[in-house]
Amino acid sequence: MSKKVAVIMGSDSDFPVLVPAIKRLKGMGIETEVRVMSAHRTPAAAAAFSESARENGFGVIIAAAGKAAHLAGVLAAHTTLPVIGIPVKSSTLDGLDALLATVQMPSGIPVATVAIDGADNAAILAAQMLALSDDCLAQKLNGMKREMEEGVAKKNEALQEKVAQL
Amino acid sequence: MSKKVAVIMGSDSDFPVLVPAIKRLKGMGIETEVRVMSAHRTPAAAAAFSESARENGFGVIIAAAGKAAHLAGVLAAHTTLPVIGIPVKSSTLDGLDALLATVQMPSGIPVATVAIDGADNAAILAAQMLALSDDCLAQKLNGMKREMEEGVAKKNEALQEKVAQL
Amino acid sequence: MSKKVAVIMGSDSDFPVLVPAIKRLKGMGIETEVRVMSAHRTPAAAAAFSESARENGFGVIIAAAGKAAHLAGVLAAHTTLPVIGIPVKSSTLDGLDALLATVQMPSGIPVATVAIDGADNAAILAAQMLALSDDCLAQKLNGMKREMEEGVAKKNEALQEKVAQL
Amino acid sequence: MSKKVAVIMGSDSDFPVLVPAIKRLKGMGIETEVRVMSAHRTPAAAAAFSESARENGFGVIIAAAGKAAHLAGVLAAHTTLPVIGIPVKSSTLDGLDALLATVQMPSGIPVATVAIDGADNAAILAAQMLALSDDCLAQKLNGMKREMEEGVAKKNEALQEKVAQL
Amino acid sequence: MSKKVAVIMGSDSDFPVLVPAIKRLKGMGIETEVRVMSAHRTPAAAAAFSESARENGFGVIIAAAGKAAHLAGVLAAHTTLPVIGIPVKSSTLDGLDALLATVQMPSGIPVATVAIDGADNAAILAAQMLALSDDCLAQKLNGMKREMEEGVAKKNEALQEKVAQL
Amino acid sequence: MSKKVAVIMGSDSDFPVLVPAIKRLKGMGIETEVRVMSAHRTPAAAAAFSESARENGFGVIIAAAGKAAHLAGVLAAHTTLPVIGIPVKSSTLDGLDALLATVQMPSGIPVATVAIDGADNAAILAAQMLALSDDCLAQKLNGMKREMEEGVAKKNEALQEKVAQL
Amino acid sequence: MSKKVAVIMGSDSDFPVLVPAIKRLKGMGIETEVRVMSAHRTPAAAAAFSESARENGFGVIIAAAGKAAHLAGVLAAHTTLPVIGIPVKSSTLDGLDALLATVQMPSGIPVATVAIDGADNAAILAAQMLALSDDCLAQKLNGMKREMEEGVAKKNEALQEKVAQL
Amino acid sequence: MSKKVAVIMGSDSDFPVLVPAIKRLKGMGIETEVRVMSAHRTPAAAAAFSESARENGFGVIIAAAGKAAHLAGVLAAHTTLPVIGIPVKSSTLDGLDALLATVQMPSGIPVATVAIDGADNAAILAAQMLALSDDCLAQKLNGMKREMEEGVAKKNEALQEKVAQL
Repeated sequence: MSKKVAVIMGSDSDFPVLVPAIKRLKGMGIETEVRVMSAHRTPAAAAAFSESARENGFGVIIAAAGKAAHLAGVLAAHTTLPVIGIPVKSSTLDGLDALLATVQMPSGIPVATVAIDGADNAAILAAQMLALSDDCLAQKLNGMKREMEEGVAKKNEALQEKVAQL
Repeated sequence: MSKKVAVIMGSDSDFPVLVPAIKRLKGMGIETEVRVMSAHRTPAAAAAFSESARENGFGVIIAAAGKAAHLAGVLAAHTTLPVIGIPVKSSTLDGLDALLATVQMPSGIPVATVAIDGADNAAILAAQMLALSDDCLAQKLNGMKREMEEGVAKKNEALQEKVAQL
Repeated sequence: MSKKVAVIMGSDSDFPVLVPAIKRLKGMGIETEVRVMSAHRTPAAAAAFSESARENGFGVIIAAAGKAAHLAGVLAAHTTLPVIGIPVKSSTLDGLDALLATVQMPSGIPVATVAIDGADNAAILAAQMLALSDDCLAQKLNGMKREMEEGVAKKNEALQEKVAQL
Repeated sequence: MSKKVAVIMGSDSDFPVLVPAIKRLKGMGIETEVRVMSAHRTPAAAAAFSESARENGFGVIIAAAGKAAHLAGVLAAHTTLPVIGIPVKSSTLDGLDALLATVQMPSGIPVATVAIDGADNAAILAAQMLALSDDCLAQKLNGMKREMEEGVAKKNEALQEKVAQL
Repeated sequence: MSKKVAVIMGSDSDFPVLVPAIKRLKGMGIETEVRVMSAHRTPAAAAAFSESARENGFGVIIAAAGKAAHLAGVLAAHTTLPVIGIPVKSSTLDGLDALLATVQMPSGIPVATVAIDGADNAAILAAQMLALSDDCLAQKLNGMKREMEEGVAKKNEALQEKVAQL
Repeated sequence: MSKKVAVIMGSDSDFPVLVPAIKRLKGMGIETEVRVMSAHRTPAAAAAFSESARENGFGVIIAAAGKAAHLAGVLAAHTTLPVIGIPVKSSTLDGLDALLATVQMPSGIPVATVAIDGADNAAILAAQMLALSDDCLAQKLNGMKREMEEGVAKKNEALQEKVAQL
Repeated sequence: MSKKVAVIMGSDSDFPVLVPAIKRLKGMGIETEVRVMSAHRTPAAAAAFSESARENGFGVIIAAAGKAAHLAGVLAAHTTLPVIGIPVKSSTLDGLDALLATVQMPSGIPVATVAIDGADNAAILAAQMLALSDDCLAQKLNGMKREMEEGVAKKNEALQEKVAQL
Repeated sequence: MSKKVAVIMGSDSDFPVLVPAIKRLKGMGIETEVRVMSAHRTPAAAAAFSESARENGFGVIIAAAGKAAHLAGVLAAHTTLPVIGIPVKSSTLDGLDALLATVQMPSGIPVATVAIDGADNAAILAAQMLALSDDCLAQKLNGMKREMEEGVAKKNEALQEKVAQL
């Protein structure tokens, strides 16, 4: 049976940022559980979730948080599953605080960090990890890559008209 | 009986930065316990320490960490004692990562942040908190402030000679 | 008799940022005085207020200012009470100027700095300090922490519905 | 047969930064190939390597580069294997340029970014990914985590002596 | 026969930023081709375009991209034509990520970088390069410079009225 | 009788940075007083000095401080003399904290800020202000400007030899 | 006869930022000339204006520019009058580019820099310089300072009502 | 006759940074003139040089400066030749000030900016521009590109030994 992905957010206000990740995971047929869980407000719940994630069938944990974004790091402290961190932009500093608080992890406890608000890429990265032992998923990812390539070609064609009108 | 101060560091490599804090606290006669404890490498120990800190006689927790400095925030998640965070400068980014990861805490879980590598001020701030219910300590703090003022005056006098030689 | 908290702002335009702090303090039954007082426009008044704050029954001073935010530091220069600084975001630089001008205090004069625009946390931190000698307030803080925890759990449940609709 | 890890660097001057990653991977018994390959100086070789990496038995690609660090992104463009990026600090800007050039990838092409010069974590993250389908490796990772925890406890004990001498 | 300029964008969402460049090039009578082509989504097409650009009659390549802006660098890797990079501001970090990812190229592969969103200057710079062997274009550039100078003089006059009304 | 310049530093450790300013002022025959005086450690002395500076014959105040550099702003709060601020680089953040804390003054209280560690320019700027009513000083400044110009010409000549040897 | 102040802007789009400066100068009865003049688009006009500014009766030059803000530095290169620089916030980077390009002047050519968009302070600073030899203007500045102080006191009173309603 | 390249530095202390550019240009047989010339200390000389550069046989101007690096912009203001700017790292801010002051040019006056201290790339970029009408130079550039590619391949081989020893 294939492994699940957990999508954890530090606050439910981060939900809109995460929608592309959830849709992407569902679109690839990956079983996904979504939770609000805070490194600071519900530390015990976060620790418990992470500690038992592997035995509960999860393969990857995606964690999104803003400001002093400790969530991904705290989850990573309690598991040896790969943890993907999404720094979320908040009302000040344009996400730089969340980026540094997510990516600059000390030796021993990695967090695989994606771009600020980069939820879609977090989902694709999770799928790439699961695809290491799931050839069907690997083929889906290759298919997506080809579609993306074709999409750019189509946009290029559509653009020529706009250019002609300048 | 007066309350103790805990000085926690994320790595023993942070010890030299913390020496001024430990000396300052001892110098004011405040009982101090010093620990290496990591938000990422020993999360359970950190949580347990913080949860029982109040009942174990601590009044203030000082936490120092570098890079994605989660330590102060993680300790604050498990207690309602005031937690003071010291961002520690590491080999890149000049401490900006640790500063943002310490100070930009979400609503509900404050960390009283001091300057990058500002260990002495962390100790004074802890003493100021304890002095709210300890008049003797308050008088010591006032004495220190007067000495500091006099120290500047003396340095000013000493400087005049150097200036004359230019 | 329990100690008061002073909430000082550098400009009355900072008032909206401070509303959560004032409400939080009042909500916990802490006597609070609110003042507009500028390190630059009314330096004498600021100095006089801070010098007499302890004898006037204050336990903690909260100071909010933007740009080259000197207010917290200037108040801290005149007292040994703990001073909490709130860096306020203004029209440029996203609050980074205020953060650095508040937190990077020289040795001897600490300012307990919270997040940019982090007024609620300033109030909670002040309460944590006062609670060191006020068990009733400590219990309120513990209660708040539990409610916060339960709040996250409820939000998590509410979220599941939204997730199901994606 | 288990999958290999590729460790690619943009310049051989990055080698010292990567030594901890190579040692860590070897220490866990993971077959590792190390290459100098540049997104800018040998783009065709980089593209060819990445395109055939999956069929050549690689499971994860680790890429380290400094300055306008395009290497990880360029390799990711040519594969659906997970690519881990290590931003390398160079002579100016303290690695911030490499961090942003590595982590801020556009939607569709993720790079799993670790801390500036964070080679050890890149190796652990690669192992975590491979361990999703390799229980033996998962057990090694758990063992390492426990050792790390015990290491902190020992350092804490060792520290007490130094503290006593202050 | 005079050489063409290629205007390449990483995503069609960058088109509005590039309109001033395209108009400026057309206004100077320079033959211009505009393409959507991505360093990450269509790497093979980008490589092929760049490799054959010189023989296809191009003299200069202008490349615009946001976030981890690798496009200009990747095109420069495949040609010895001068490549001009326009860092594009995206939803976070105000274009600083794109600026650093464009300008901080390693030794051997230059990218001539202009200001964030500085499309008009990219076009003028391209014209300046072509004008090195095209005296007619050089005269146009001199004419534009004089008009610009006169334009400022006119604006100065127009301003005096507004000033008088203050 | 011509006006004096005050050179104030927040800490005597800033003295080496200020030597060029003191030498420059003395070299132009401007009467100069040098003081250590801290916005935080000796706030009353700083306020008293600044309030009486005009009547004590000072024309300009130069203030140098590092980190959360409040000194120039605090002096400016107590006088309507022009105050020149020199942000001093300290052990972290490369002087950016001092620059922002000095220059970002609120409306009503300007500080004329020069470059980080820019002591020589602070002295020249002070001389330029005094020269508004001192033609002799104005001529000295013009002379210095001409010498500077000639100095560059000589360095240009000397360079040609080095270039020839490459 | 008293000296004039020149207010120079790099582009007429900077005019709204400068309105407070012009009003402030006029309000203090200082003769003011306002010009659009660009370091890059009209370099000869800028040089000529600055070179003859002293003999044309100017005492201070205020220069406002955004982005790579060279205007103040270029004007300062051609005069020994004090030049005040106002960094103007533009569409990217929040004025940080203009601040650094204005304040970080090399030794020998100072620019007295005020806050980003700090036009009012530029005017006050110019008045402070002129007041060194104009007692009447010095008294006006003292009067303004007192009014500012009283203004804060009034705002403080007005605030109390709002606070009572929370 | 082929066009010359001018290499201008704001201060002779920038010479070591520029050595790779001068050597590279000489190595490609491009006639090169090197000058110390300052936007601030010798503005008239800089303007005169730039205005007559085209008629004096120059094709490209390379300008290197640190801090508030105005040199490239000021030269570009006086010519329609392409101007390449090299931001030079100085004692504070790691070259970020020079980078922003060089690259963020206003519309109408481009500066082709290369990496901080990126002198070698400035020379290559200049050669790429001249090669637009010089096939021999274009072939040299292609040759250099192939050598660079082979150089990486050799370094890769050499590295394998070091890796084997880990």
